[in-house]
Amino acid sequence: MLPSITEIKVRGYHLDLFGHVNNARFLEFLEEGRWAFVEGTMDLTEWQKRGIGFSIVNININYKKPALMGNVLEVRTSLSKIGKTSGIIHQDIVLKGTGKLVVGADVTFVMVDTATNKPMPLTGDIREAFETLA
Amino acid sequence: MLPSITEIKVRGYHLDLFGHVNNARFLEFLEEGRWAFVEGTMDLTEWQKRGIGFSIVNININYKKPALMGNVLEVRTSLSKIGKTSGIIHQDIVLKGTGKLVVGADVTFVMVDTATNKPMPLTGDIREAFETLA
Amino acid sequence: MLPSITEIKVRGYHLDLFGHVNNARFLEFLEEGRWAFVEGTMDLTEWQKRGIGFSIVNININYKKPALMGNVLEVRTSLSKIGKTSGIIHQDIVLKGTGKLVVGADVTFVMVDTATNKPMPLTGDIREAFETLA
Amino acid sequence: MLPSITEIKVRGYHLDLFGHVNNARFLEFLEEGRWAFVEGTMDLTEWQKRGIGFSIVNININYKKPALMGNVLEVRTSLSKIGKTSGIIHQDIVLKGTGKLVVGADVTFVMVDTATNKPMPLTGDIREAFETLA
Repeated sequence: MLPSITEIKVRGYHLDLFGHVNNARFLEFLEEGRWAFVEGTMDLTEWQKRGIGFSIVNININYKKPALMGNVLEVRTSLSKIGKTSGIIHQDIVLKGTGKLVVGADVTFVMVDTATNKPMPLTGDIREAFETLA
Repeated sequence: MLPSITEIKVRGYHLDLFGHVNNARFLEFLEEGRWAFVEGTMDLTEWQKRGIGFSIVNININYKKPALMGNVLEVRTSLSKIGKTSGIIHQDIVLKGTGKLVVGADVTFVMVDTATNKPMPLTGDIREAFETLA
Repeated sequence: MLPSITEIKVRGYHLDLFGHVNNARFLEFLEEGRWAFVEGTMDLTEWQKRGIGFSIVNININYKKPALMGNVLEVRTSLSKIGKTSGIIHQDIVLKGTGKLVVGADVTFVMVDTATNKPMPLTGDIREAFETLA
Repeated sequence: MLPSITEIKVRGYHLDLFGHVNNARFLEFLEEGRWAFVEGTMDLTEWQKRGIGFSIVNININYKKPALMGNVLEVRTSLSKIGKTSGIIHQDIVLKGTGKLVVGADVTFVMVDTATNKPMPLTGDIREAFETLA
């Protein structure tokens, strides 16, 4: 399946002391990409009502190249693995046009029972929703 | 009553394109100051359970002087007015040491009935809590 | 002239304790709208090289209605006044579709000589660029 | 050497849709901890004038436990490795009092020649400054 693509233009408030997009801000860009990725397929607010939460357990992010004022970035999001209780979303942020890699990240998640805050097996309609995205 | 004082040191991630604290970030500094101001006197999460929400209706903020990397700021927060249904919190952000004004803001709020989202009169223990701060 | 329109969808990371878009985040939405408004007409980084800075001196913002998860917002930006040394940009954030007002703000700015940090008269090509937007 | 400790109280604007500190916000907490860690030992703005930049190449962050409104967090920062051209800063965020782990992160950095944006060997006074922190 093709990755979901979200476009973000770098603005003045994204930058920091060094004139580059700040490393924390990239996590917001990644989150933006993940919301776009799942919408249409998953209704996280409905899942929340059923007591099922989406919980990120690890982010491993490589910063390859600084992003600068005015750059147009593409956040490319895809599901790279779906296991019994956890999955991995892979996300690349590239410069639009050249495709040069700015940031690459693996985001590991589990679904949790919000009553107990314990991970739950990825089964039933939850699993199906993820398989639609794989 | 003396204003509540919260100290914030300007870091790299607070700055923007121009090397100054970004205008949106100052609103987080002000919010930080307001939480420090009300804690001890008001339990907003408990009020929330009672169906009473704190809602900001206007912020009028003057940017007087840029704040730079390494500056130590003081957020000075006080209640300047408490009316029948609304109140005004005044906040100054100054450079520690010199006291030079960086930002001055008036923050107008109401308390709302969270069921109807309508403003409610400032009476009873809610009013008393604010009067303690005046 | 028609206002410039920037569309923003409310995501999980925009919300706060109360499940509403946080008041500081709205200032980022407004800044996003202003960058879109001026691009094509003004090259702020080129102006910066000439020693001319854009400086916000006041923001007066009314919060009319909470913005919630999944809402699609339109940031509508226009120049409402251009004086001898200062100007006012008016910005409304409305719910797409209904046009209901979420936030309305007046943003007062000056241009500063970055060497002295003093306001400078709005003349020449700077003035022309603003008049193009009026 | 003992880790540097920075205390942060969780406020309403740190939270997201789920009522937890948002995963991007934790990166700001970590950055706050790193600035506190290096100040007194390293003058990054002076290094910047010499054409030497601090550049993060990887963050590997584990989210162990949600942080909630009112929690007091300790960001504990230490240098875990200093190699020929790169180093690793380890950071734990724990609940003050219980010491329960909320977040653990390894932050890998290099120093770059800002003219060429290439990594440079960690030698001389730069190395000495890091060794002071080890």
